[in-house]
This record gives sequence, C-alpha cells and structure tokens, in this order.
Amino acid sequence: MMNVSCTPTISHLFKSTCSLEDNELQSFRARAERMMRQTQSTICAALEKLDGTGFAEEVWTSPDLNTSYTDRVLRNGNLFQMVAVNVAVAQSTFSPETARAATGGCLKVDEPLPFFVASLSLVIHAHNPMVPSAHGHYRYFETGCDAAPQHWWFGGGADLTPNYLFEEDVAHFHRTHREICDRYDPSYYPRFKKWCDEYFFIAHRRERRGVGGIFFDNLNDCDRETLFEFLTECAGAFPLSYLPIVRKRQDLPFTERHRHWKQLRAGRYVEFNLIYDRGTVFGLKSGGRIASVLRGLPQHARWEYQQIPVEGSEEAKMVDVLVTPREWA
Amino acid sequence: MMNVSCTPTISHLFKSTCSLEDNELQSFRARAERMMRQTQSTICAALEKLDGTGFAEEVWTSPDLNTSYTDRVLRNGNLFQMVAVNVAVAQSTFSPETARAATGGCLKVDEPLPFFVASLSLVIHAHNPMVPSAHGHYRYFETGCDAAPQHWWFGGGADLTPNYLFEEDVAHFHRTHREICDRYDPSYYPRFKKWCDEYFFIAHRRERRGVGGIFFDNLNDCDRETLFEFLTECAGAFPLSYLPIVRKRQDLPFTERHRHWKQLRAGRYVEFNLIYDRGTVFGLKSGGRIASVLRGLPQHARWEYQQIPVEGSEEAKMVDVLVTPREWA
Repeated sequence: MMNVSCTPTISHLFKSTCSLEDNELQSFRARAERMMRQTQSTICAALEKLDGTGFAEEVWTSPDLNTSYTDRVLRNGNLFQMVAVNVAVAQSTFSPETARAATGGCLKVDEPLPFFVASLSLVIHAHNPMVPSAHGHYRYFETGCDAAPQHWWFGGGADLTPNYLFEEDVAHFHRTHREICDRYDPSYYPRFKKWCDEYFFIAHRRERRGVGGIFFDNLNDCDRETLFEFLTECAGAFPLSYLPIVRKRQDLPFTERHRHWKQLRAGRYVEFNLIYDRGTVFGLKSGGRIASVLRGLPQHARWEYQQIPVEGSEEAKMVDVLVTPREWA
Repeated sequence: MMNVSCTPTISHLFKSTCSLEDNELQSFRARAERMMRQTQSTICAALEKLDGTGFAEEVWTSPDLNTSYTDRVLRNGNLFQMVAVNVAVAQSTFSPETARAATGGCLKVDEPLPFFVASLSLVIHAHNPMVPSAHGHYRYFETGCDAAPQHWWFGGGADLTPNYLFEEDVAHFHRTHREICDRYDPSYYPRFKKWCDEYFFIAHRRERRGVGGIFFDNLNDCDRETLFEFLTECAGAFPLSYLPIVRKRQDLPFTERHRHWKQLRAGRYVEFNLIYDRGTVFGLKSGGRIASVLRGLPQHARWEYQQIPVEGSEEAKMVDVLVTPREWA
C-alpha cells in the first residue's frame, strides 16, 4: 500500500465539548473509530490485492466542524477506475440548522448540539462495464456529552449499481447482507432492503440508481453493543458481498456499445448524487471539501437527448429492474 | 431542415382563463409567441448552414400546465455535438406553490394565478474544445387575464462557456450584447452582466460556469413595446454574438489533453445545471419531460479526484477568469 501511514485514533485529541468525563463511555467512541479504521484497512487491502494497484492516503482536517478525514483513493487501477475508502471522525457542535440538515430533518433542536460521529464510506467504479459499481457507508452517531450521550444511533448500508444485469450477482450481494441481518432481527433485511430501494430513487427518472442492497439510519432499537456488532459485521462483509462479483466479471469481453451504455448509466449516477444524495447535498451546501464530497462520481458520464434502450435488449432488461425492484434474497 | 413543419401560433387554441376579451391585448401574446418562433427559425437556419446538419423537430404538449413545446435538436453534427433550440408557450394557471417555484420566489400569491409565457431557449455544445458552449433564453411572462394583465415582464440573456480563454472572443460576445443594451438603457449592460456572473455561480466550486454575458429577469421598468423590441433585438443578435467565434475556432487543432479538459469542464457544467439552474431544478421537481429539462447537459462529462490545473497553464488561465470575472466591454 502506497503512502499509507498508521494513523492513531484521534477522538482523544479533540477538546471535549462538555465537562463530564467517563472513561467507559469515552472508550465507546474510540472503539467505534477503531472499528472504522480497521475495516478501512481490511477493505483497502482486499481491493489492492485484487487490482494490483496501491491506494494513496490523504489525512486532513476540517477545522470548522472539527473533523478528521483519512481518505484512501485508488485511481486508474488495472480493474478499478476509481476507489475511495474514507474514514471521518468528528467531535464537534452542530448549530440547530446544521443538525437538521446533517440528519435529514431527524434532529430538531433549538440549541447548539455537541455530537460525535465516526464513519466509513466507500465507492468503487470499475473499468469493465460488466463489473458493477458499489457503494457502502457505516457510521456511529452520538449527541450530547461523551460521558452521557443524549442520543446515539447507527446508520449504514451497501448497494450495487450494475450496468448490465447478472441476476446471480445481485442475488449474491443481497444474500450476503440478508444473512447478517437475519442473525440480528428478521425484520431488518426486508425493512432495510425496502429503505435502500426508496433512498436510491431518482424521482425525475422514476428509476433507482442501482439494484439496491440494504440501507438503514437512526438504528437504536436494541442495545448499543449488539448494534455495534451488527454494524461491524455489515462493514466487514462488504468484500464478501462484492469481490466475488468483480472476479467473475472482470475479464468478460465488452464492446463500444457496452462502454457507451456504462457512460449513460454513469450520467444517472451523477444525477442521483448531485440532486438527491443527502450526504452530497449537505456537503455541497455546507462548504465541504469538494474533492471529497464529489469523490463518489464516476469518471465518465454521458447524456444523450432521449436515449431509450431497444425493447428486449440487455440494456432494457437492466432498466426494467431499476424501474421495478425485485426481491433477491 | 429535416422534419420541420410550419407550426401555427397556438395562443388562440388555448381556452382563455378569464372571460374578458380584447383583441389588442390578446395579440400581444400572439406577437410574443410569433417572435419566439421566428427567432427560433432564424437561429436554427444559421446554425444548420454553418454545421451542414439538419435539425429534427418534435412538437409536444404537456397537458398539466397546458404548454406547447416545439423542440428543435441537432445531434452529432459536423461542428456541433448537440444543439437544442426550443420554444415553449403556456397559457394556464399556477397553483400558489408553482407560482413561487417557477419564478424563484418572486410571485407570492394565495390563489390560483392565470399566466401566459412564451419562451425561446437554446444551448449549443461543439466537438472542438476550442469552440465555447453557448446558452441563451428569452421569455415574455404575463399573469392575470390576457385582456388585462395583472403583471407582465421580460426575462432573458445569453452566456458563453469556453474551455479555453480567447480574450477577443469573450470581448466580442460581451460587446455585441452591450451595444444592444446601451441603446435602451445605459444601466442595462452593467446590471445584466453582473447578474449573469452572479446567476451562473457554482457556489461549491467558488467559480462561475462560464465567462458570462447578460442575464435579466422581471424586466418591466419601461413600456412594454420598448422592452419587447429590446428582447427581440437580444434574441436576434445571438447568432452575431456567437457564430463568428465558432468560425474562428472550429478548425483549430486539439489533442487528447484538450479533449480531457473539455470533459472536466463539462462536469462543472453538469454540476451547475443539476444543482443551481432554476429552470432545471424546477423542471426536475415538477415532473417535467426529462429529455427536455436535461437537454442542456453536455454529451461527455468527466470527474477526477482533485483535478487542479498546473499553474500558468492555459487551463489555469481559464479557471482564473471563472473565479474572478473580468470586465469585457
């Protein structure tokens, strides 16, 4: 791995936003951060091994929200066009407006709100149009003092965006996530699968960005340790859910027609991210670091006036599933 | 010109939204519509002649807002990647919410509001990275009854989006528009130039989409006949402001580097249109016809993680002007 330094956990470096101290609870923040960093390393190592190209690391901080970022990016690899696997850890205070914007309206407060968040996000775009793009995000969020959190919750998910439909790939991706969900709560997978289909909806196209996976937020309906384990398992399973698909499709032949279609699909991906994605829209409006906010965009996107796939074509089969999501696991 | 039928003016086909009738005033709507259609034909003929490729025409209506569209599109021409020159004529009733959204908050009403609008919009993207993209829009807006309009105003403008900076081209484009403005009101050009720089601001990049031109809205500070003449002149001058630039740059040699940069700039163009452009955002949210709402997007766009031009390069010179607009005329 190129330029990757060992970054120590940083929670303790931030000035605490309230006066109480409690080592037991403080350490939950540190554990959440450590889990994100360890999973980042595991995922990067697996992708690096498959691609044969190293990640470059950038560590930077955003002073206004007291956030530390560890971005790992693989560009122009052998298989992957772009991979970004990023960790962010923030321990700061939200203004009431920012609290609302950052949580999609879930947090309604009248006063400045101390918060902590540790998150891992990843996005992968491959060269071969037969290899789907993938995206994952995992976070632990807490408000109030670290000694006595007012609210805490977990959020996350993973979703797949193919250009061409290989049903067994989609089934494998969903099944991997369903198996984890089912071990914690049988209601999780059906709820989180539906939530994912709803979240990645490109309303103006009446289609989804991809074939989904799972998506959840504000998850606190169980004890914190159990949910932490659930999140850890979800994040840890990402390579299992995705890499077998890459291996199976990475050497499939493709033509200009497939490349062209991939770029049109990338255009839809851009539309979703710039118009609907909560994190992107928040990042753009809040003056976030643009290279990071927009890191998930595919390299090449294409728009054509009224491009509609021929009925019965492979391209049309793909769109059918985006318009009408199916059950996969 | 391919498939271009002669479309009669359609104002009179719509059911009037109020009972009063007045031929004199009714005919102002018809005149506005006729001007838009005539200018559409003139502009299309000029572009067609230069490119050697014909426009395809689509005439369609959107029943919910009682709007008739005449879209003319030139695709994959010899010089132009895509040109869309579209006329829309609507005679309908806004809900209070739509009135606000469609006018960027200018119209605040509590009751359904009858309105009429005739508009012409155009967008041009060329193949050669040395040829700038261009955009223009011209409209007449009226609320209330056609016999006794409650409010009326004109809006419009034209702006240039080069990939590489040829100062004489930008000066020519601005000068052409300044000359018209100055004949009507010496305050117009400075105000409308500034308005244009402000409107096409990509806030999250802290740069403008292009090198500007003029932009105005809610213009009713003079008698209606004079302003109608002003709008007619502006729209009619578009070919004079733009085509000499195309002719001068269409045969300049370019390399992969220039093509690459053009695609990165196209990415910024997409960012502006999807995130900030009032018409696009309104069209997407209101369930407009997507092919038309997004017709202005360039064919190929590219995103790269933290792409920053080398200091002193031609690319950096371009960005400088987008970050710090200059006076050109």
